[in-house]
Amino acid sequence: MIRLLILGGSDAGISAALRARELDSTADVTVVLTDSFPNYSICGIPFYLSGEVPDWHQLAHRTSEEIIREGVHLLVNHTAQSIDPADHSVTVVDENGQLLRLPYDRLIIATGAVPVRPHISGIDLPGVYLLRSMADCLSVHEYLSAHDPRSAVIIGGGYIGMEMADAFTLRGLVVTVVEHAASVLKTVDFSLGQIVGAELRQHGVIVVNNIAIDRIVKDGQHLHVMGTGGYHISTDLVLVAVGVQPLTNVAQSAGIAPGERNAIRVTRMMETNVPDIYAAGDCVETWHHLLNQPVYLPLGTTAHKQGRVAGENALGGHQEFAGTLGTQVVKVFDLIIARTGLREDEAVLAGFEPLTVESTFWDHKVYYPGAHPLHIRVTGDRRTGCLLGAQMVGHWHAEVAKRIDVFATALFHNMHIDELNALDLSYTPPLSSPWDPVQMSTQAWMKQYEQGGQDEHI
Amino acid sequence: MIRLLILGGSDAGISAALRARELDSTADVTVVLTDSFPNYSICGIPFYLSGEVPDWHQLAHRTSEEIIREGVHLLVNHTAQSIDPADHSVTVVDENGQLLRLPYDRLIIATGAVPVRPHISGIDLPGVYLLRSMADCLSVHEYLSAHDPRSAVIIGGGYIGMEMADAFTLRGLVVTVVEHAASVLKTVDFSLGQIVGAELRQHGVIVVNNIAIDRIVKDGQHLHVMGTGGYHISTDLVLVAVGVQPLTNVAQSAGIAPGERNAIRVTRMMETNVPDIYAAGDCVETWHHLLNQPVYLPLGTTAHKQGRVAGENALGGHQEFAGTLGTQVVKVFDLIIARTGLREDEAVLAGFEPLTVESTFWDHKVYYPGAHPLHIRVTGDRRTGCLLGAQMVGHWHAEVAKRIDVFATALFHNMHIDELNALDLSYTPPLSSPWDPVQMSTQAWMKQYEQGGQDEHI
Repeated sequence: MIRLLILGGSDAGISAALRARELDSTADVTVVLTDSFPNYSICGIPFYLSGEVPDWHQLAHRTSEEIIREGVHLLVNHTAQSIDPADHSVTVVDENGQLLRLPYDRLIIATGAVPVRPHISGIDLPGVYLLRSMADCLSVHEYLSAHDPRSAVIIGGGYIGMEMADAFTLRGLVVTVVEHAASVLKTVDFSLGQIVGAELRQHGVIVVNNIAIDRIVKDGQHLHVMGTGGYHISTDLVLVAVGVQPLTNVAQSAGIAPGERNAIRVTRMMETNVPDIYAAGDCVETWHHLLNQPVYLPLGTTAHKQGRVAGENALGGHQEFAGTLGTQVVKVFDLIIARTGLREDEAVLAGFEPLTVESTFWDHKVYYPGAHPLHIRVTGDRRTGCLLGAQMVGHWHAEVAKRIDVFATALFHNMHIDELNALDLSYTPPLSSPWDPVQMSTQAWMKQYEQGGQDEHI
Repeated sequence: MIRLLILGGSDAGISAALRARELDSTADVTVVLTDSFPNYSICGIPFYLSGEVPDWHQLAHRTSEEIIREGVHLLVNHTAQSIDPADHSVTVVDENGQLLRLPYDRLIIATGAVPVRPHISGIDLPGVYLLRSMADCLSVHEYLSAHDPRSAVIIGGGYIGMEMADAFTLRGLVVTVVEHAASVLKTVDFSLGQIVGAELRQHGVIVVNNIAIDRIVKDGQHLHVMGTGGYHISTDLVLVAVGVQPLTNVAQSAGIAPGERNAIRVTRMMETNVPDIYAAGDCVETWHHLLNQPVYLPLGTTAHKQGRVAGENALGGHQEFAGTLGTQVVKVFDLIIARTGLREDEAVLAGFEPLTVESTFWDHKVYYPGAHPLHIRVTGDRRTGCLLGAQMVGHWHAEVAKRIDVFATALFHNMHIDELNALDLSYTPPLSSPWDPVQMSTQAWMKQYEQGGQDEHI
């Protein structure tokens, strides 16, 4: 009977635990959690805070009971303090400071990530929040209920910032998004970011760009948020959402080597440099399928996949994590924004010679009611003609996400862009065209490529 | 300057013409049409008859002017009578019986398909329609306007039958669908066909199975439709939609060899057996990517692809048609039904040892409002573990079509079912789960496969 210990009870940790139990019903699997929210869908937090999800318990991917029923032991409210690789044990501490030594045959570190705390004075004031864990979520919710704020400032125009702008607006707050860069949602190119900005504005959100916030002060009931160029706004609530960083303090204390962006260095089998210790999820670097090297790209989808691989290999398996393509999607009001693979600038950094072509098509035959424009940017390599990435913005009901997944599946197979014409994709007038917009966009790319086309300046 | 003559102005013919002009702006390209509706989206006919598309002119993929602007000559209302391969010419006849001889260097036959006329006595009565061409469409529309029928009987529960049941219901008619088989929409398995039947019934459609219609008689204003087992129903309008067959009379007169189901035999370069004569679209047999042999499977998507290949090769190119997977999708009221690849029974016939596993998942995280069940049937090969096909039924806004396209893209690359876990598919709670339903369905298949699982009896 193998003793498998897992530090962290979110996506990667629980995936690892369940996969291990699925493969070996005699395995003794224990998951140690710092809080009491195993397997919560932290991606769902914005939808609880918006009011769309009435009860936060609904955010659990699985209940504790369901996990326990699979034969997994849950040790909640225990925080790992140190790992002793020689002794094959972990020291954990409970809420009361009580220490406990847990032996293991195999250990999986899945401690996740924490929000980046930017250098903003006043970031710890009451009413200023970072949002990552269920505890953060419940704190914000409590503040919303107790203080009934009328306005909110969101610092950071990334995924969380966008979803929370939507959520707070739905809740009736006047929302300002302050973004350091020239456009919100920098994970897509500027031209698409502008469409997202327009969607926000259309729903009453104030979008401010090219401002870096450096100070927050409290004045009675109000928070004053101040930044570069004399920027000043007063508000009732501030949310700071400028990214995350891997939580690796326990791992590092045990001599586990860091990799990209100080995330835990792992092989594609999710092994660390220390024998019998694996790691997965938002605390590790991630193999990139196109770059053929590790990056730091923490995503729930990846955490599930890596956890599954780690759970299998910790039991003696030989699975390899296939690698990420950085496929991501976000809903902002009625707009869906998705991407997969590399953008032009990322492709240049990686040594490709990219060409990016943007085109716009109806999501379905325009004669059928309800057609919406799909804005598609295709990036391919001038040297090989191979697909490198795609970005897409379109209406909620325009199948944007799964169209990006067609690109992602094509990327997984390193398809030549011209080859996408050969894909037998589905068509009916209410849903597509005889050439799907995916194919029309790659045809547009090919046309420019064959003409030795120049990049648009973006 | 090459003279390219194309017989047929629907999807394949116009695709061929446009591709040829795109590649060689000196090519002399003439398209001969029997009617005056070049490049009409005949897939859109149900949406005109439903009233959703107010003006039938909207159904044109492109207007005549747009086609002519690309340098294509259109010869409307001319029907090809015979081909003289030795002379490299085609004799066509106009509406007045005037004959015209058209020389060619290369000829592309894209004469399409016509509806199957089943042996039903009374099939030519006024008020009984077959529906395929724009002329058919306008006839039905005229009948609807002139006679304001209250009820319709649709003979045949295939794609056209389903779409027209939806269309006539939307128009306010009481609709009866009479299907010869045990379930409507036989292109998907029985269990999914039952869900489609339920959707029809829920919208007031009367669905009758296991009845073969053999007789229609007219009695004053009413049509009496009679079939096996003493079945009898009276109605105001009858639509017969039991499939199509290739229109190849002109081709055959020229000694062009027939292939599957008497469609024109073609190579993957869309060549017929006669030099300088190519063929494409619903009049030809189609290479099947999984079966590695030709089948007869007329689809608009395929016609566009084959037309493009034929247009390029007629000008000296060497493109190969990559093959069909039989990817299809249809909207029936609020339900989308899609498939790609082989069903279990088709796989058995082809010599595979298939296993089919059906599973049901929410299209997105159930905590987010508006989640709908997705019913997915995955068919894979027991010998190799490779994907053979998938069928899916779900709500209009559950991205069914493009999820089937993820399967189609995987099939194109002959993926092992287990390998689909490695795909980096997009996720946000309003649109999916960390493992997309596509992956949950392949995981369900793998579980049954690894347990040496038995097929469900379907």
